[in-house]
Amino acid sequence: MTPEERLAEMGITLPEVPVPVANYVPFRFAGSLLFLSGQVPRGSDGKPITGRLGVDTTIEQGYEYARICALQLVAVAKTAVGDLSRLSMIKLLGMVNAAPDFTDHPKVVNGASDLFVELFGEEGRHARSAVGMGSLPSRVTVEVEAIFHVR
Amino acid sequence: MTPEERLAEMGITLPEVPVPVANYVPFRFAGSLLFLSGQVPRGSDGKPITGRLGVDTTIEQGYEYARICALQLVAVAKTAVGDLSRLSMIKLLGMVNAAPDFTDHPKVVNGASDLFVELFGEEGRHARSAVGMGSLPSRVTVEVEAIFHVR
Amino acid sequence: MTPEERLAEMGITLPEVPVPVANYVPFRFAGSLLFLSGQVPRGSDGKPITGRLGVDTTIEQGYEYARICALQLVAVAKTAVGDLSRLSMIKLLGMVNAAPDFTDHPKVVNGASDLFVELFGEEGRHARSAVGMGSLPSRVTVEVEAIFHVR
Repeated sequence: MTPEERLAEMGITLPEVPVPVANYVPFRFAGSLLFLSGQVPRGSDGKPITGRLGVDTTIEQGYEYARICALQLVAVAKTAVGDLSRLSMIKLLGMVNAAPDFTDHPKVVNGASDLFVELFGEEGRHARSAVGMGSLPSRVTVEVEAIFHVR
Repeated sequence: MTPEERLAEMGITLPEVPVPVANYVPFRFAGSLLFLSGQVPRGSDGKPITGRLGVDTTIEQGYEYARICALQLVAVAKTAVGDLSRLSMIKLLGMVNAAPDFTDHPKVVNGASDLFVELFGEEGRHARSAVGMGSLPSRVTVEVEAIFHVR
Repeated sequence: MTPEERLAEMGITLPEVPVPVANYVPFRFAGSLLFLSGQVPRGSDGKPITGRLGVDTTIEQGYEYARICALQLVAVAKTAVGDLSRLSMIKLLGMVNAAPDFTDHPKVVNGASDLFVELFGEEGRHARSAVGMGSLPSRVTVEVEAIFHVR
């Protein structure tokens, strides 16, 4: 089953990802590597989802927002390569907006990791770090950036 | 126009970048990828520029300091490849020293992104993340690391 | 002398690194690049070493914990390629759990950088950033991720 077929089976439509209004772009190829800009979670109204783990956001919410970031990364990757079957996930950096004493970053970033494996199977397994930021743009809850390999 | 010609037109002389006094180096090649160590902004006296966004540093100052980081990255890249025309910018990580409630990281990191596009044109457009750190070495305002592709 | 011979000479046995209990993996190849997941320092009991620089952990301790992270990265890399002589260290990201006014991140991350150069010699010199996180999983002191090039 292709990632696109899995998306259909799961009833998921890839979100539209806004193009940055600045001198950077959502993705860039370097040979067979595909580098993606960090994605922040957006609600159905397109607005960034804000909050801080350990303050006003639960782990379950954080997981869901990390999953949204991952879906947005997949949407960008599809724009970049057309056919998602050509991709292997290589590396993910999950950056969680969290209070200094928060400890469950991995459980939040699993929202992204799980989505990649659901869609890509073995090719979705990746190296990653899941860490806590002092602050994030617009006070978003989480930001995820990714590197894919293109076959 | 080459990046070197644009620098001349803009009246910019690339800064001297101090070689780290430790077991790491300012750049490393991996095949056609060029990985650069994070650069922190230095004043004309060579001292690191310190401050924290949302505390004692304005967005306009942060933008300027991110631009200095970018110039230092270009100086390192020139040492690495000689001819800047051989480079495409791929990925930038802009790390801002900011208070927990700061929200305008992208406006700060634009100082680096804009410089790369001014110098390299389309080849300067890059994937990026712009995020907030809990702290930075010497309490510098911002640190930027970069990956280039060499043609 | 090979990295394995140096390890023997230094009387170091590589630690066992636990496989993540989640949808990510300790390493992933992309062509000749080897991306490693972030490693957090573990004591001889396997438990994560916790603390915060500038609060309850000294620079000397932080250096030692960063060195442990590096040894764990080497252990993962050995699993990945078998023969450590095939590796060049390219890029390291040292993420220090630190108070907002902490300034000596490089001295902490040197614990990792020094170990790589002790083991790999010139091939161990790398680009790096050493920065301060707002928080880290399980409140660990430091987390280090790495990219190697495989010959």
